[in-house]
Amino acid sequence: ALITVLPGDGIGPEVAAAGQQVLTAIAEKYGHKFSYSEQLIGGAAIDAIGNPLPPDTVASCRESNAVLLGAVGGPKWSDPNATVRPEQGLLAIRAELGVFANLRPVQILPQLAGASPIKSERLRNVDMIVVRELTGGIYFGAKTRDATSASDLCVYERHEIERIVRVAANLARNRSGKLCSVDKANVLETSRLWRDVTSKLIATEFSDLNVEHMLVDAAAMHLINRPSDFDVVVTENMFGDILTDEASMLAGSLGMLPSASIGESECGLYEPIHGSAPDIAGQGIANPCGTIASAALLLRYSLHLNEEADAVEAAIRQVIADGKRTADIAVDGDQVLSTQAMTQAI
Amino acid sequence: ALITVLPGDGIGPEVAAAGQQVLTAIAEKYGHKFSYSEQLIGGAAIDAIGNPLPPDTVASCRESNAVLLGAVGGPKWSDPNATVRPEQGLLAIRAELGVFANLRPVQILPQLAGASPIKSERLRNVDMIVVRELTGGIYFGAKTRDATSASDLCVYERHEIERIVRVAANLARNRSGKLCSVDKANVLETSRLWRDVTSKLIATEFSDLNVEHMLVDAAAMHLINRPSDFDVVVTENMFGDILTDEASMLAGSLGMLPSASIGESECGLYEPIHGSAPDIAGQGIANPCGTIASAALLLRYSLHLNEEADAVEAAIRQVIADGKRTADIAVDGDQVLSTQAMTQAI
Ligand SMILES: CC(C)[C@H](C(=O)O)[C@@H](O)C(=O)O
Ligand SMILES: CC(C)[C@H](C(=O)O)[C@@H](O)C(=O)O
Repeated sequence: ALITVLPGDGIGPEVAAAGQQVLTAIAEKYGHKFSYSEQLIGGAAIDAIGNPLPPDTVASCRESNAVLLGAVGGPKWSDPNATVRPEQGLLAIRAELGVFANLRPVQILPQLAGASPIKSERLRNVDMIVVRELTGGIYFGAKTRDATSASDLCVYERHEIERIVRVAANLARNRSGKLCSVDKANVLETSRLWRDVTSKLIATEFSDLNVEHMLVDAAAMHLINRPSDFDVVVTENMFGDILTDEASMLAGSLGMLPSASIGESECGLYEPIHGSAPDIAGQGIANPCGTIASAALLLRYSLHLNEEADAVEAAIRQVIADGKRTADIAVDGDQVLSTQAMTQAI
Repeated sequence: ALITVLPGDGIGPEVAAAGQQVLTAIAEKYGHKFSYSEQLIGGAAIDAIGNPLPPDTVASCRESNAVLLGAVGGPKWSDPNATVRPEQGLLAIRAELGVFANLRPVQILPQLAGASPIKSERLRNVDMIVVRELTGGIYFGAKTRDATSASDLCVYERHEIERIVRVAANLARNRSGKLCSVDKANVLETSRLWRDVTSKLIATEFSDLNVEHMLVDAAAMHLINRPSDFDVVVTENMFGDILTDEASMLAGSLGMLPSASIGESECGLYEPIHGSAPDIAGQGIANPCGTIASAALLLRYSLHLNEEADAVEAAIRQVIADGKRTADIAVDGDQVLSTQAMTQAI
C-alpha cells in the first residue's frame, strides 16, 4: 500500500513520524509492504513554495491508498490579513479527496480519568463517536471582506446532509442503535433543512434506530453533563469542530484522540484531532497517541487490516495501563515519556 | 419604574413570576414603586394572535425601563417547516431593543460544586463573564431555503464588533484586566475581521489590558479544562450561545445562570440563560435562581439600584448556603424545594 504522509507544522512532523513508525512496525510484524510518500502541506508548504497545498501533494494523495496528516498552522502564518494561510491547505485537501465524513471516536481509558477535568463517575461507560460533516457548511461557503464588513455563507445541500447522516446511521446500527443529530434548527435555515432531511432519511431507511435531535447549545452542555448517554452523534462542520474539541476533555487530553475522514473513494485522510501546538513544537514532548490511533483507523478503514488496527489500539491501551504518559496526560507521580519513548513503547 | 414582563413558554411563566415576586419584595423593602406590564411573546403569542412578537409587546417594551423575560419555544411550535416560530419573537425583541451586548456571568457557589460534572478543584476561583454579541452574525443574516438546499449568511460590520469589544474591554478594566476574544480566524472571514478590529481597538484604547485571542474549538476545551484562567470572554453570537451553555455546567446547572442584554438605550432585556424546558413545564419544579439573578442584573444595570441588586444576589447565595435546592441542583440528601418555595425563601 502507498501512504502519503503530510507532516505539516508545529508538532505535526513529530507526531506524523510517530504514526509512520508504528505503521512500519505493523508492516514488519504482519508481512505487509507499506511505502510512504512524504509531502508538503500548510505553513511548511507556504514557506517552501508559497502554496499551502502544492499540486505534487494533491497528486501523491490521489494515487495513495491513504493519507496520514500531522497538523497545520501556527503564529508565523496567522496574520488576520494574510492572503495565504496554512489552514487553506488542510481544507483544500479534505475537499480534493472528497472526505465528507470525519469520524471522531471518544473513548476513555480508565487510567486517564485522573487527567480529565470531568468527575470520574460521569466518565463510566463513555464510548461515543462524533460524525462531523467535513466538506460543507460555513467552512466552504462564499466569503467576502471589505474595509467595513465581512461575511461567511453557510450552505448545505440536501444530498450532503443525506450522505453524512447515512454514514452515521449505519455506524449507529452496528453499535447501540442510538443516534443523536445536532443542529440549531430554532435559528438556522440550514439546520431546519438538516433536521428535515435527517427525519425523512431515518423514517424511510433507518426506522429501527433510536434517534434524537438536539440543539447545539444543549449538546455542548449534555456532552459534559451526561456523556455516557451519547453513542453516535452526527452534526455539521462547524458544530462538529467545536463539540469534538470539547468532548476531548472527557478523554483527558486532546492529544489522545484520532480521526478518520472518509468519503466516496477508498483513500481516507487520517489525522489527530489536536492542532499544531506551536508552544511545544520541537521539544519532543507531544503526545503521539492521537496520531498513532489515527494510523490504526487508517489500517482499519482504508487498508481493511482489522487485526492490525486492533493490535495498534491494544498497544496504546497497554502502554497507558503500564503507567507510561506524555506530559499532557501525566498526573503527579506518573512516569513522563518523550514522544519518541512513548512511540517506541507502543 | 415600569417593567415589561414577558413570560413566554414552558417554564417561562413560572420563572418570570418568581422574578417579578422578588422585584416586588425589593420595591416594598426599599420603598420603590415598580409597575409591571405583562405581554405576550413566543409560542404563547403565536397561539393568541399568530405573531411571535405582537406590536403591543414591542410598544410596551419601548416605554419600559427594563424587560424581564422567561423563555420561549417548545415542541408544539418546532416543526422544521413551520413558517412562524417562537424564537423569532425573541430574536426580534433583541433586535428591536438594540441590545447588542449579552452579559452572561458564570460564578460558582461552592455549595453547588457537587452538582457540577467538573472536578471541584478546577472550579476554585472560577468567576468569569461571557460577553456575547447578540444582534448580529449568522442569527440575523439573510437566509434561503428551497427544495434542495438552504443557506444562512453570517455578516459582521466593523462597528458592530467595535462596540461589543468595547463593552467587554470596559468590563475587563473594572475586573482583573484580562480579556479573551474568541473567534475562528483560521477559517472564517468574519472572524478575521473580528480579530483585526479587536486588535486595533485594544492597541488604541485598551493597551493596559491583557488580551488573548483564542479559537472557538480551543475555547470549548479550555473552558472546561482550566475555567479559572478566564475572566472576561467576548465572542460573536453563535459561539457565545454554545460556549455559555457549556460554561453553565461549571455552575452545576443551567438553571442558576442569569443574563443581561444591554445596548444603546437604558432599557435592557433580562433573561435566564436556560430555555423553556417543556419536559418539566407546569410542574412547579423549575429553578427560579437564573431568573431571580437576572432580576438582580435588571436592578443594577437598568435601574441603577446597586444595593438592591446586591441584596438579591446575597439572598440567592444564602438560600443555597442553607441547603435549599430545586431538583436540578440537588444531590443526595439535599432538601428539594418547589419553584415557589425556593422563591419564597429567597
Ligand atoms: C485547523 C482547522 C482548520 C481545523 C478545523 O477547524 O477543521 C481543526 O480545528 C480541526 O478540527 O481539524
Ligand atoms: C432560544 C434561542 C433562539 C436562544 C439563542 O440561541 O440565542 C437561546 O438559546 C439563548 O441562548 O438565549
